[in-house]
Amino acid sequence: MSTDFKARRNKVRTALFDRCDALLVTNETNVTWLTGFSGDSTWLLLTETEEILISDFRYLIQLDEECPGVATCIRKSQVRIHEAAADLIRDRKIGRIGVESHALSFESFLQLNEALGDAEIVDTRWEIEEIRSVKDEGELQEIREAVHLAAKGFDYLKAILTPEITEVELAHELEHAMRRFGADGVAFPPIIAVGDRGALPHYRPGDLRIKDADTLLVDWGAQTRLRYKSDLTRTLVTGELTQRFEEIYNVVLAAQEAAIAAIRPGKSCAEVDAVARDYIAEQGFGEYFDHGLGHGFGLNIHEQPRFSKLSTQVLEAGMVVTVEPGIYVPGWGGIRIEDDVVVTSDGYEVLSAYVPKSLESSIIHGLNTPR
Amino acid sequence: MSTDFKARRNKVRTALFDRCDALLVTNETNVTWLTGFSGDSTWLLLTETEEILISDFRYLIQLDEECPGVATCIRKSQVRIHEAAADLIRDRKIGRIGVESHALSFESFLQLNEALGDAEIVDTRWEIEEIRSVKDEGELQEIREAVHLAAKGFDYLKAILTPEITEVELAHELEHAMRRFGADGVAFPPIIAVGDRGALPHYRPGDLRIKDADTLLVDWGAQTRLRYKSDLTRTLVTGELTQRFEEIYNVVLAAQEAAIAAIRPGKSCAEVDAVARDYIAEQGFGEYFDHGLGHGFGLNIHEQPRFSKLSTQVLEAGMVVTVEPGIYVPGWGGIRIEDDVVVTSDGYEVLSAYVPKSLESSIIHGLNTPR
Repeated sequence: MSTDFKARRNKVRTALFDRCDALLVTNETNVTWLTGFSGDSTWLLLTETEEILISDFRYLIQLDEECPGVATCIRKSQVRIHEAAADLIRDRKIGRIGVESHALSFESFLQLNEALGDAEIVDTRWEIEEIRSVKDEGELQEIREAVHLAAKGFDYLKAILTPEITEVELAHELEHAMRRFGADGVAFPPIIAVGDRGALPHYRPGDLRIKDADTLLVDWGAQTRLRYKSDLTRTLVTGELTQRFEEIYNVVLAAQEAAIAAIRPGKSCAEVDAVARDYIAEQGFGEYFDHGLGHGFGLNIHEQPRFSKLSTQVLEAGMVVTVEPGIYVPGWGGIRIEDDVVVTSDGYEVLSAYVPKSLESSIIHGLNTPR
Repeated sequence: MSTDFKARRNKVRTALFDRCDALLVTNETNVTWLTGFSGDSTWLLLTETEEILISDFRYLIQLDEECPGVATCIRKSQVRIHEAAADLIRDRKIGRIGVESHALSFESFLQLNEALGDAEIVDTRWEIEEIRSVKDEGELQEIREAVHLAAKGFDYLKAILTPEITEVELAHELEHAMRRFGADGVAFPPIIAVGDRGALPHYRPGDLRIKDADTLLVDWGAQTRLRYKSDLTRTLVTGELTQRFEEIYNVVLAAQEAAIAAIRPGKSCAEVDAVARDYIAEQGFGEYFDHGLGHGFGLNIHEQPRFSKLSTQVLEAGMVVTVEPGIYVPGWGGIRIEDDVVVTSDGYEVLSAYVPKSLESSIIHGLNTPR
């Protein structure tokens, strides 16, 4: 992936430099996106003409290798990062300095504010996140790779299912497999939920075994070496297929496909959310779907935009989002189906279209059912 | 591990409730330590007589299972967490509310402050971290387990070394092995550095192979299911043992052992740091050791206290720390030796004493050397 970091920095300058004269980027993911630096404890000062990474000696060589052409300010260990930043800002007589209030602790703000003296602080919270919600070609390529790694991992997971294997063991085998295929690791701790545990949207894998119930919900993703992510969910039948499961599965799948079909530039996120939500409600399951329909992702697993009832965001070409309706019945279980979708100039492309999701493909034979 | 969370909460009340009337705990690790809750997006309001977890519907069942006896406030999805917290604080007519300024974004602080109205905000940054730097018996047991899992993982790593295996592959195999032994995962992304990469204190494993050089630095740890951690480093000879390596290894080892021997309650952290630092300087390598000697750990990988020149902290029985001097020669490589040590009532105990660290034990035969 060859990346035009300079173009990204100029995009940020264009968007923000009417409100401030310089920007202090403290969100580590934003620093990565603007410079390619993959370490931590490092801030970026962006002025009209300069870009300076404020870091420490531990990252000397890494900065040199990852960020050719970007200036660095290597602080001594007794100089704290906010002091080094304030020195640079004062030296340049910057009047209005943008800060990311969502990515700076209140403690750091107090220290920075004191060190800055007279400079006026302008809150630029979430602005860079909004800009990077539209992905460039290189980013899309990385996300495709992350989807591919996740797909291969899931094939492996299905292939090693036994009645005895536990949720935790499956989670670990899945991660190990994706790494062997070339992933940096998981995009987030996977949710591997047997039976009624599928009703817990944030379940952590435990010691339940496949044979303990008839269903298995898997919500997983891979992370590439450059840290781009994927995020998928499939719900499998590992035992007996019940009529209830079939009924709910078909409602979730139809809701998901209808919502995906509604995706195109200019469409509001609330509208897309409503397509799935209204359908599920019409089918009588409205009370069992109470999270947002999906979210952007990329370097972070949760990015802009968000599909929810309250969202005021509008889709643009290049945004990459999950579409993941679910129906969760306490004590019974949950069914969620999640794909990764990019908004194209005239509609959408499902990046994970090749990961099967028909009911038929979700039935694993010969595990818990009597043969 | 059976934990007296009530006793922990009372310790915090005793320490802080002369300065404030209630405390809003926003650091997730502190919430875990005070209640046992292992999820995220959840704050704890601690008053003289109450403890209330402020969370959302996703965690209903988990809260019930993990925190019996602790009240919960489950906010609706349209009520944001700071609004729910402010409502509880106002309802109770709390005058002075403690907040953790290091664990609250400036954005959240602004929102909370506005929602709070007249309540006076008291900054209680790092106070709970200081209290939990002294571990109780159950915590020590978990840390012993984390050391044990790391030790088994390292034995495995040494056993699978081949000339062809890469740093990244070793990192993944190490994690997979520790999980098979029962770990939740790694305590932090391990540093696996071949040859001169050992000179980079924060190196990320790459594609170098064991056969590419004569040495291998491994800095790794395990995390238990309850999220307690270990943190160890060993530097191995995988090829030819040079006189220079032997000389530097012996300096690092002697510095480490002298520093460990200086550990006891009442000793200042700066003094212990100086024992190793002065010895390394006397041997002529002072310029090559420029990070702190070690740090506390437990639920987080970096906790209080810190061994450094500037530290004003004093050791107490029950603190658990790393001791990890290193000598890093750019272009040549680095040698670091790190053990986990608990401060006892009359001295110290090396929790990782059974992980070999003599020069002899660090030489892996038959890999890159001609046989």
